[in-house]
Amino acid sequence: MADGFKHLVLVKFKEDVVVDDILKGLEKLVQEMDIVKSFVWGKDAESHEMLTQGFTHAFLMTFNNKDDYTTFVSHPNHVEFSATFSTVIDKAVLLDFPAISVKAPAPA
Amino acid sequence: MADGFKHLVLVKFKEDVVVDDILKGLEKLVQEMDIVKSFVWGKDAESHEMLTQGFTHAFLMTFNNKDDYTTFVSHPNHVEFSATFSTVIDKAVLLDFPAISVKAPAPA
Repeated sequence: MADGFKHLVLVKFKEDVVVDDILKGLEKLVQEMDIVKSFVWGKDAESHEMLTQGFTHAFLMTFNNKDDYTTFVSHPNHVEFSATFSTVIDKAVLLDFPAISVKAPAPA
Repeated sequence: MADGFKHLVLVKFKEDVVVDDILKGLEKLVQEMDIVKSFVWGKDAESHEMLTQGFTHAFLMTFNNKDDYTTFVSHPNHVEFSATFSTVIDKAVLLDFPAISVKAPAPA
């Protein structure tokens, strides 16, 4: 089942970065933009360096479709956030993909 | 808002691997195990090598909590699948984290 278009970002932050400040900026960004349908993030809780390759945080946004994602990426709010974001990360991996839901919880 | 425990895997498959066969195995695995609450995957559609670092696929499973995730990881079905999976991948990154939902779609 197709399940929107997802924008996934894995990052390792530079040392001394106040991650809470980054998170506030991210929350503001997604709350301001209605085309971001959902935003979930997390910090790795297992810490197997061999498996995480040093990445610590995952950020996952969902859009209704790829067009909305493209609109988001080129929006001034995102461009401005990204410029700041790029200065605080040591490394990142980005994957952008049409999501396929194989299994989903039953509707509440 | 806490939103379960997530198991995220990014991979680059070896050349000549039949990814559809791997996907079938993954689907079977998650369908067999009730503690896997949701499973979503996707193949990168943007292909910016600089951003993807060569990773092509993302797999995301959600569990109710970390205990369920731990149970899943040590279950013989997962152990067997992982043994096969590890032979077909060129590289992988795994992040396992309690998910924080900042924004979620309104319930249908």
